[in-house]
Amino acid sequence: MATTDKASPRDRLLEAAADLFYRDGVSVGVEALCRSAGVSKRSMYQLFDSKEEMLAASLERRRAWYEAQLTPADGPGAPATPRERVRDVFERLEKGSVTPGYQGCPYLAVLVELKDPEHPASVVARDAKGRMESYFREQAEQGGVADPAVLARQLMLVFDGASARAGARIERLDDGLALGTATALMDAAGMA
Amino acid sequence: MATTDKASPRDRLLEAAADLFYRDGVSVGVEALCRSAGVSKRSMYQLFDSKEEMLAASLERRRAWYEAQLTPADGPGAPATPRERVRDVFERLEKGSVTPGYQGCPYLAVLVELKDPEHPASVVARDAKGRMESYFREQAEQGGVADPAVLARQLMLVFDGASARAGARIERLDDGLALGTATALMDAAGMA
Repeated sequence: MATTDKASPRDRLLEAAADLFYRDGVSVGVEALCRSAGVSKRSMYQLFDSKEEMLAASLERRRAWYEAQLTPADGPGAPATPRERVRDVFERLEKGSVTPGYQGCPYLAVLVELKDPEHPASVVARDAKGRMESYFREQAEQGGVADPAVLARQLMLVFDGASARAGARIERLDDGLALGTATALMDAAGMA
Repeated sequence: MATTDKASPRDRLLEAAADLFYRDGVSVGVEALCRSAGVSKRSMYQLFDSKEEMLAASLERRRAWYEAQLTPADGPGAPATPRERVRDVFERLEKGSVTPGYQGCPYLAVLVELKDPEHPASVVARDAKGRMESYFREQAEQGGVADPAVLARQLMLVFDGASARAGARIERLDDGLALGTATALMDAAGMA
């Protein structure tokens, strides 16, 4: 997502951080981030205590945008049933997975890369994944599933496996693989 | 896996590399690797052209061991049917996922971290994941599934989603979540 020259140094840093961490991983250096944002290191350290804090803030900042990509607000054209709402998430995942620069779910990637559940960015990422799981669980409840929590966890396995494998270029989802898998699990759980 | 003092510098480097890359990620430095292996940097660069090559060789070296953990050889006590062989992989995944230091599948982690399908270690990792998918496909064929390739890909989504989420400490598999999901998909595919 491009930012204008008028964006504040803080905004430019957070956008650059979100882009570079996603593209190259969490080991991207502070110099590269500052260069990309057009902000001095001195200014950066006035805005953020550490690279860790900047990484966490950049993930937090993108969350609303990212969630809106996967689970759009209610309105005309929105899926009408719980099952259709779940299918819609997987359809969006599959479409997104073949766009240029796709590297899988940014939150799972950060968790895999940091290997540190206590890192401030891991906390943001875990929370984002938890929100998606809650969304699936709500749909499963509304769909009359006997154990909505288990179906939601199953759907998360599929979502994260599919996004990680597509991001790693060891799978392609555009033949409906993830959607078909999610649908089979909703069928098995008796979801209306 | 501990090595003895009598192990060659090459073996010590590869064991240290496999351990440290798995624990801390692919950004571990050459100094830390050499220190852990008790080998000088000079010796390391006589044995390997680059850190990249050493990473690839360390993954390759562990492959037989890792695959034996998940899909043991035939013999007394081995699972007798294709369905039981698939279930056995997921049971082993679930048991392994709660052992100390578990960080998910090492091959998927390397692919997520490197974000570079051309990296020599990505090639080794992709090959390892492909071998597991082939194993699932063979079982699906023997189990009379109409589309064995699709079931194998579905099982890989579950395996990789489950191992990544357990490794990232956002899921626990010891209540049979991955096994139950894989079983539901085998049922849906009509696997004997």
